[in-house]
Amino acid sequence: MPETSDPTETPVVQSTPSRRAFLRGAAVAVAVPAVAGALAACGNDHKSATPNAGTAPAGTPPGAAHADSDHSGGTMAPHPQGPANARAAADEMDRHHEAGIKSFPAATKGKGNLVMQPRMENGVKVYDLAAAKLMWEVAPGQMVEAWAYNGQVPGPQIRVKEGDRVRIDFTNNLEESSAIHFHGLQVPVAMDGVPFITQPPVKPGEKFVYEFTVPNAGSHMYHSHHNSSKQVPMGLLGAFIVEPRRGETHRADQDYVMILNDGPHGYTLNGKGFPATEPIVVNRGQKLRIRFMNEGMMIHPMHLHGMGMLVTHKDGYPQPQPWMCDTLNIAPGERWDVMVDAQNPGTWAFHCHILPHAEGPMGMFGMVTALIIK
Amino acid sequence: MPETSDPTETPVVQSTPSRRAFLRGAAVAVAVPAVAGALAACGNDHKSATPNAGTAPAGTPPGAAHADSDHSGGTMAPHPQGPANARAAADEMDRHHEAGIKSFPAATKGKGNLVMQPRMENGVKVYDLAAAKLMWEVAPGQMVEAWAYNGQVPGPQIRVKEGDRVRIDFTNNLEESSAIHFHGLQVPVAMDGVPFITQPPVKPGEKFVYEFTVPNAGSHMYHSHHNSSKQVPMGLLGAFIVEPRRGETHRADQDYVMILNDGPHGYTLNGKGFPATEPIVVNRGQKLRIRFMNEGMMIHPMHLHGMGMLVTHKDGYPQPQPWMCDTLNIAPGERWDVMVDAQNPGTWAFHCHILPHAEGPMGMFGMVTALIIK
Amino acid sequence: MPETSDPTETPVVQSTPSRRAFLRGAAVAVAVPAVAGALAACGNDHKSATPNAGTAPAGTPPGAAHADSDHSGGTMAPHPQGPANARAAADEMDRHHEAGIKSFPAATKGKGNLVMQPRMENGVKVYDLAAAKLMWEVAPGQMVEAWAYNGQVPGPQIRVKEGDRVRIDFTNNLEESSAIHFHGLQVPVAMDGVPFITQPPVKPGEKFVYEFTVPNAGSHMYHSHHNSSKQVPMGLLGAFIVEPRRGETHRADQDYVMILNDGPHGYTLNGKGFPATEPIVVNRGQKLRIRFMNEGMMIHPMHLHGMGMLVTHKDGYPQPQPWMCDTLNIAPGERWDVMVDAQNPGTWAFHCHILPHAEGPMGMFGMVTALIIK
Repeated sequence: MPETSDPTETPVVQSTPSRRAFLRGAAVAVAVPAVAGALAACGNDHKSATPNAGTAPAGTPPGAAHADSDHSGGTMAPHPQGPANARAAADEMDRHHEAGIKSFPAATKGKGNLVMQPRMENGVKVYDLAAAKLMWEVAPGQMVEAWAYNGQVPGPQIRVKEGDRVRIDFTNNLEESSAIHFHGLQVPVAMDGVPFITQPPVKPGEKFVYEFTVPNAGSHMYHSHHNSSKQVPMGLLGAFIVEPRRGETHRADQDYVMILNDGPHGYTLNGKGFPATEPIVVNRGQKLRIRFMNEGMMIHPMHLHGMGMLVTHKDGYPQPQPWMCDTLNIAPGERWDVMVDAQNPGTWAFHCHILPHAEGPMGMFGMVTALIIK
Repeated sequence: MPETSDPTETPVVQSTPSRRAFLRGAAVAVAVPAVAGALAACGNDHKSATPNAGTAPAGTPPGAAHADSDHSGGTMAPHPQGPANARAAADEMDRHHEAGIKSFPAATKGKGNLVMQPRMENGVKVYDLAAAKLMWEVAPGQMVEAWAYNGQVPGPQIRVKEGDRVRIDFTNNLEESSAIHFHGLQVPVAMDGVPFITQPPVKPGEKFVYEFTVPNAGSHMYHSHHNSSKQVPMGLLGAFIVEPRRGETHRADQDYVMILNDGPHGYTLNGKGFPATEPIVVNRGQKLRIRFMNEGMMIHPMHLHGMGMLVTHKDGYPQPQPWMCDTLNIAPGERWDVMVDAQNPGTWAFHCHILPHAEGPMGMFGMVTALIIK
Repeated sequence: MPETSDPTETPVVQSTPSRRAFLRGAAVAVAVPAVAGALAACGNDHKSATPNAGTAPAGTPPGAAHADSDHSGGTMAPHPQGPANARAAADEMDRHHEAGIKSFPAATKGKGNLVMQPRMENGVKVYDLAAAKLMWEVAPGQMVEAWAYNGQVPGPQIRVKEGDRVRIDFTNNLEESSAIHFHGLQVPVAMDGVPFITQPPVKPGEKFVYEFTVPNAGSHMYHSHHNSSKQVPMGLLGAFIVEPRRGETHRADQDYVMILNDGPHGYTLNGKGFPATEPIVVNRGQKLRIRFMNEGMMIHPMHLHGMGMLVTHKDGYPQPQPWMCDTLNIAPGERWDVMVDAQNPGTWAFHCHILPHAEGPMGMFGMVTALIIK
């Protein structure tokens, strides 16, 4: 592999196709069942209520504000006696499910995990990160308070090469102290970001500069290490990808980072809950790398329909022998890299298999997206 | 291995030995401590209260309706002062424990996970599956509402060979829509069973036909993919085993499918909680395959006493190099195949090692069974 | 490797350096940022409130008795308007965080997991274990009721060699029955410790003798198997290390056993919560073995800062090919052995990455310790 600091050798998925483009694509690829295509095929007439309307976060099952739902899948109101009424209740439930899926990918304000271009200063890649409070649209119409780096949840994606010199210029505009830990990077201890052990806390309004030569390749993370059980779930986290100098062990046509989170924002993939999550769109025959990262408090066994995933790396280290699965259990703090060989065309559900993280009686929500193979 | 579509080349455990046969077997094998043998050896006189009497599901610790138990193991009422009274309280607790074990395997109405014989139609293996509501005896005397395929929880076990043509003729007799997803099978997307993405929902009283050539070998599952966080824990799930055309990588004398579940039915193994779970009975020297499948919402680290388990497959894919363990953590949606070399004779406890899933102050319950090596 | 029954060939970490020695060491090693060194460098003036004062267990976030904290990281009281007041509130929070870290490792009464020397009787290693109730100081000033073997939580560490003959002379001084299961050891079934299956329960005031030839090497455990979801979290557990006759596959300069627990004592490492946990102190260039064991009810993904861990064994069995990680997910009942190559000097945080198990708004607590590389 050529040696270069261009982080985009492998196309990095970072922009959601607009809803319009998504539907257009699906409409064209008529031979391939896709979301909109399926909708056309399966469609029922319905007056689609806006799913997830209201103020509950994405991890809240749709309708949870009204229904007495719980992790067992919630409770539907008992339907009146008789098959006709049962059918009407079933239709009503299905309308909610359909509306959610039909709106996918739903437009929301704000997008996180965008690859950040550094400033170059004397050969050093400089990243300015500022933490501040903001309101974040985690799913359509659902605004939550977030604490974010540079206005993004997750924070901007940092992509560098092994051996690069990097500087993180951190400004804390929060109302409490913070600090940044580079999770997985073997930095010198003074750059490790643990207040009172390796540095003083960064007080509100103050700055701290982290600088180091990037030591070890892999899928890593950066996040707050101060009052972390509050600051991380609120959004102070991001991907720190280090590309190996000798090239990746597995060539990818697309390289996708999927950060899992749970907590006050609900169940999210890259800061959004379904239907505001972004589909991954590849062409048939392409090789897709997915870098799973869990920044939450719970495991999330991610299940991909229709094909297997080849597990190649754990926490940035190559596995001695890659191995196949279709459901990968990802624990808090872990990163797993997988390769997907996109041979089976279609729109494939891709979700956490703890089902109450993905679907409720009013439809899919939270940790659900789709892999679309054209 | 000969090529045949007979799914019973390897004897598949599917029938619980009756309680009478179980006790008789144990009484004969006097040199081998077994449940009843141990009871004879350890027996205390006691008036055995029926364990788990009442209406709480199997996952509820025995006596939970009366005691203020919780996941920390519950609270026993403080015993009156003095060693004599302490001993009486200890004896009382032990009586409940003993009664539960002595009743194992307890007879209950209904049995799931029975291997289903297909109808053959022009070379196609046809499986008729109908979903309906019923009452299910999850442990002795404990009736729960279940939503079941063909009256079984788990649904009937489907066992086919790689390359077989199969048809699933699905009738929905529930009061809400449903659909069947073939979890782990690389089917064409139109057969993937996700309403509004790959097919319309199957309305109450309606039918849907799935048909495909079985693509990839391994321990797979089928389950509802509509309102799934309700429908799956209620019982709409089953094993879909695909035997490889070239034969299994590891020869087994017995092949046992163990489906884990949690939720409204409590903590269950193949739809039953201890003492209604079924023991696995093998002869010394035999090779036993266990196919673990988790259809619940929680991890369940299954621990086998007395010997190790060789992990051979994950989600139907062979591991590059099998590896040994005695406690295997199984996350929702995962399947793991293991081989057990039955060399250590005896009755071995086999249970989830999240202890509150297996034992409470009134005795063992939920995810507990035994491996009996004669 | 020479064949010997001396369990201390590899130095086994078992004594916490006193706080005085710890600070002295840190003060000398001025070139290496260590806890006290960092404090000197980062120090703020502060009146340090004793962290964790009160009676809540170690797993309770500091201040939880007063604040309405939860697993999302708790809630800080809203600070009065204005940047000066925000700064004052941030300073107040930081003072609590600093006080906790500055007190590490905090002295507490009682220490578990101490290697026990057996009595020798005719070539048999005899271990006398007695279970009794006591009060345990889980973190400074936090007394909890514990049920313990020989007054230790975890119980005394048993270290023997493959093929040794051992006898466990168990006396039950509790007010309820008990029994000892040797988790991971392939003992004859009569020694398996499951009341009413393999032995009668050991009544209050009674004894039971376990005796066997140690069958299989590895990191194993012993714990109660009667009313276990109560007795194990209360403290009836310990490490049972079996050194292979042919020597370990990976040479270690230090061999450290880390037992994870959760439940009524809070989140603990070897029976203590931060800041009463013990640091692991090694010299640069040394090889450290860590034997993780989970005796709790939850997973704990342990994350080591600054370097990777080579995973060598699962449940005492060698992995076919060791593999690297920095975050290792450990499920209840599992044991994982790892090797750490101590090349990166400094004081490295080492904690469960379920953040609410490690930090709250008042500072770090529970499952946190440090690896100090001098």
